[in-house]
Amino acid sequence: MKNFAVIGVGGYIAPRHLRAIKDTGNCIVAATDPKDSVGVLDQYSYDIKFFSEIERFDRHLEKLRRGPEADHVHYVSVCSPNYLHDAHCRLALRVGADAICEKPLVINPWNLDALEEIEAETKRRVFTVLQLRVHPSLMQLRESLQTSTATHDVELTYITSRGPWYQVSWKGDPEKSGGVATNIGIHFFDLLMWLFGSVNGVRVYHSDHERMSGFIELERARVRWFLSVDKNDLPEQAKENNKTTYRSITVDGREIEFSEGFTDLHTKVYEETLAGRGFGIADARPSVQLTHDIRKAEISPVDALAHPLLKK
Amino acid sequence: MKNFAVIGVGGYIAPRHLRAIKDTGNCIVAATDPKDSVGVLDQYSYDIKFFSEIERFDRHLEKLRRGPEADHVHYVSVCSPNYLHDAHCRLALRVGADAICEKPLVINPWNLDALEEIEAETKRRVFTVLQLRVHPSLMQLRESLQTSTATHDVELTYITSRGPWYQVSWKGDPEKSGGVATNIGIHFFDLLMWLFGSVNGVRVYHSDHERMSGFIELERARVRWFLSVDKNDLPEQAKENNKTTYRSITVDGREIEFSEGFTDLHTKVYEETLAGRGFGIADARPSVQLTHDIRKAEISPVDALAHPLLKK
Amino acid sequence: MKNFAVIGVGGYIAPRHLRAIKDTGNCIVAATDPKDSVGVLDQYSYDIKFFSEIERFDRHLEKLRRGPEADHVHYVSVCSPNYLHDAHCRLALRVGADAICEKPLVINPWNLDALEEIEAETKRRVFTVLQLRVHPSLMQLRESLQTSTATHDVELTYITSRGPWYQVSWKGDPEKSGGVATNIGIHFFDLLMWLFGSVNGVRVYHSDHERMSGFIELERARVRWFLSVDKNDLPEQAKENNKTTYRSITVDGREIEFSEGFTDLHTKVYEETLAGRGFGIADARPSVQLTHDIRKAEISPVDALAHPLLKK
Amino acid sequence: MKNFAVIGVGGYIAPRHLRAIKDTGNCIVAATDPKDSVGVLDQYSYDIKFFSEIERFDRHLEKLRRGPEADHVHYVSVCSPNYLHDAHCRLALRVGADAICEKPLVINPWNLDALEEIEAETKRRVFTVLQLRVHPSLMQLRESLQTSTATHDVELTYITSRGPWYQVSWKGDPEKSGGVATNIGIHFFDLLMWLFGSVNGVRVYHSDHERMSGFIELERARVRWFLSVDKNDLPEQAKENNKTTYRSITVDGREIEFSEGFTDLHTKVYEETLAGRGFGIADARPSVQLTHDIRKAEISPVDALAHPLLKK
Repeated sequence: MKNFAVIGVGGYIAPRHLRAIKDTGNCIVAATDPKDSVGVLDQYSYDIKFFSEIERFDRHLEKLRRGPEADHVHYVSVCSPNYLHDAHCRLALRVGADAICEKPLVINPWNLDALEEIEAETKRRVFTVLQLRVHPSLMQLRESLQTSTATHDVELTYITSRGPWYQVSWKGDPEKSGGVATNIGIHFFDLLMWLFGSVNGVRVYHSDHERMSGFIELERARVRWFLSVDKNDLPEQAKENNKTTYRSITVDGREIEFSEGFTDLHTKVYEETLAGRGFGIADARPSVQLTHDIRKAEISPVDALAHPLLKK
Repeated sequence: MKNFAVIGVGGYIAPRHLRAIKDTGNCIVAATDPKDSVGVLDQYSYDIKFFSEIERFDRHLEKLRRGPEADHVHYVSVCSPNYLHDAHCRLALRVGADAICEKPLVINPWNLDALEEIEAETKRRVFTVLQLRVHPSLMQLRESLQTSTATHDVELTYITSRGPWYQVSWKGDPEKSGGVATNIGIHFFDLLMWLFGSVNGVRVYHSDHERMSGFIELERARVRWFLSVDKNDLPEQAKENNKTTYRSITVDGREIEFSEGFTDLHTKVYEETLAGRGFGIADARPSVQLTHDIRKAEISPVDALAHPLLKK
Repeated sequence: MKNFAVIGVGGYIAPRHLRAIKDTGNCIVAATDPKDSVGVLDQYSYDIKFFSEIERFDRHLEKLRRGPEADHVHYVSVCSPNYLHDAHCRLALRVGADAICEKPLVINPWNLDALEEIEAETKRRVFTVLQLRVHPSLMQLRESLQTSTATHDVELTYITSRGPWYQVSWKGDPEKSGGVATNIGIHFFDLLMWLFGSVNGVRVYHSDHERMSGFIELERARVRWFLSVDKNDLPEQAKENNKTTYRSITVDGREIEFSEGFTDLHTKVYEETLAGRGFGIADARPSVQLTHDIRKAEISPVDALAHPLLKK
Repeated sequence: MKNFAVIGVGGYIAPRHLRAIKDTGNCIVAATDPKDSVGVLDQYSYDIKFFSEIERFDRHLEKLRRGPEADHVHYVSVCSPNYLHDAHCRLALRVGADAICEKPLVINPWNLDALEEIEAETKRRVFTVLQLRVHPSLMQLRESLQTSTATHDVELTYITSRGPWYQVSWKGDPEKSGGVATNIGIHFFDLLMWLFGSVNGVRVYHSDHERMSGFIELERARVRWFLSVDKNDLPEQAKENNKTTYRSITVDGREIEFSEGFTDLHTKVYEETLAGRGFGIADARPSVQLTHDIRKAEISPVDALAHPLLKK
């Protein structure tokens, strides 16, 4: 049994990590969050030390590090806002633990270099959550694609409605979240590179606080993509059915079915990580680099390669 | 359809208010919380203005007050930490709305006087959530008790485990929560006075940050009570069954059964309030006064009137 | 003797208000700031109630309002970040006090309408600090200009170096400060309109987070202006003399001398306000409107009317 | 020239560190504080990177650590609230810098053990500010006392008025400041042990949030002490002269004169530290231990050894 500590335990994504820790038979010993509304902890254990200041959390982990081996913290789960991920991974490594960090591991690729150096110094590891890579249907799809070197036409559409709170929160601040492509898109970009190889070229047609759209040329695919958090972008059919999310990936016009099997992907990632098969910095790098490049790209005029929703 | 705004929307209790607003067919138009992790709003509407600063929320409500009638805010639901309740009720009244405030309405009884004066000045009302008074079994019990003037022996035991986060949070600070009797006990004290009449005397045997116990003489009952947030206080039987909460009220040795029917009491309170039968300041006063008196009471030596858990 | 309460007492500008209150023989009874490093208060009195939460401050002022007349708060000095000014002025009026608010009174002109309505409802007043209007040399200049209706050529240059902290703070966020023209320029724009009449036209040549420059046509003046917080914009001569601020207003090529007499302008504004000659919402409006228009203006290509520093 | 970074730069004590860095000819390259009202930095340099989040500050220092040698941070000055000192010293050591920390270095002696271990791991040092040890008059006094082994009667009285803000701030919270003996007394306790040897016994007669008083037996002195932040404790004579602070140390009835020479003690401490003669963890330990023991001592009845102010 491994001891875990959790940073950002009061946030939206933390419960999936808490459950993954529990489901893999491990123990939560400490947690921190600047806000103190963390009654969620009581669902897991009544013995979790809680700190509303990162400094006091760090002091506690330092104390455990120097204490009896049974108390050592082996993993720190990082569930804080994106722009703090690397600082909190560093905290983990410094107190002698490995980090398991929510996506995106970092916002800017050069922060990965820094993390790699600290990995080397501390002999500890930083892992991240690339959960689509452990999704059974997608693993199967990948296998089927490996047999050929054909180039595919891919269309990625992801529209997930968010109310005004989203823009008020850190998620709406590109310096803190990386913006729409990074915050809601990075999983899909990682998936596409994992399926179709690395990037040959990038074009961005549109970019604002609520939506981004572009074209990516991968080794074995031409990808048109459209990402949005604005409910007005939902297709008519979705609106009529009162759906608030529309997610579609087509390969050569055929829909990839992966809406099932999402319930416990965090747990699978934890299982893999604990078994020594976690996703590390090198795995995270391509999608961090790509979303960075998308964020910095100049806007191109809409052309034939653009996503159909843009051309309307 | 009435327009609602919600203060403290990121906290633990807010979802019950959000659901009550929705279940009664009303509309959430604005919300605030110092923390921005409020994706919960998306379950209710994508048109809720959100503010992470109370000043900006106040500005928005002022704007709505002076705008077209369809936009007026009729109710402000107050779900903030206890010690801010009265300030947030004042905010509601000043922008021309009624307040529906979580319990305890205030920590100290003199704050009720101040709220009454502002009610008079603004011609608006402050309501609170005394949800046990709308619980079907308890309403029935009250009716059956009305027929006699006999004096009853009552034992109240409420042990609800909380992890270390509880003491770190505002709930663990008596100046902010009022302490255990106020924060977890006030519903029961209100219930007992509603059932058995007003207070003739109070004795407190034990008081610390995790548990309090005492004796109350009501018009028609002698009440021994014990409240705790420490899991070690759970009865053996509860521990063996992995229960984390133990709640019992006995009247003359007979257990009052009310564990069912808890699911939508907030909605019932909202229905009553919207129908003009809400619980106001006068309804809140006895339990606020009593829990204040308990907080300030000198500790008495344990005697024959003490709760059995204390005498162990 | 009047009783004063101060909002934002831990900030940069608060000491000038504290001193003005003392120098005019009045009494500071309460203060608030989210940060608690406010030992400055001990220089004025050991009897100032302090609150680190605006809600508790509001509760205290409400209590004083309903208490004996000797305890009433007559004025609330507002020294908070710009974007909170109107909310804090509202707080003042609601607790029965007048507000004396730092500049800019508000960021957007429509907030002035809302304040005027609350003034009417509460019969209380909002005053602001337009201290250049009480500067002896500038008052004299104004008098001398009143005698003719000639149109003048005016050049306003204000470069005041700020380190990187400025952009990290609320001052660097246009939504919170209004940007450079509003935050460091509004006094000068108010001065120019007070001297030369109202605005006939506005042109903005440059606008970024550190500098703005444009042209204004007033009734009796053509104004080229350049504002900056970047030390690299300082004229060579200033740099050589290790000056960190360069401030110049020329009228028809003649330098207006007003570098003396700055030490106690807040006190003079307080004296005027206490004597019933304060600057109200109507006085604040022109400069709030103008800086708003500058903020929203489209950028014009640099032309003959541009400030010389721009043409370099 | 050494590079310095400063933690807690917006607080009360920071300006003395900023000046000491400047006066010793060194360079401030980065600073952090949760509040952003830090215009004070502009008095020292316009090239100080500022961060309002400790995580971003840490990221920046990490970057400098891995960058060119000219950019390395050699010292981190720690001016944060007392209870964060050790966490911030750890931060310094981890990024390869030495720490120069305000007093008290830590609140509890066991935190010193932890810091010593990190010193050993990182080969970096933690220094603290014991400025009375570099005060010329006091150095002279120490020399004169070294010649004999006589036991002296010492009376320490320190009353320094603080307004209500003090108790609202972290200074009023014993968990964050250590309480009166630690926060305002530790310098004097360090001084007395430095002059008269180590502790043989401690008695505490009175302890509340505003004042503490007791007796200490040192190797060569019997010390009665009285510390207060309540202006009502000032001697009549001080009150009559409108003094707000009363500080007196008598040895065998003779007043020790040391009110002069206080202006630049921080600079002297910095000079000593930079010259390799700084005060380290071992120097800090006795006074940290003593004030901890005082904090935890049971209250003794007032007896003949008590300070005269207590016996009134």
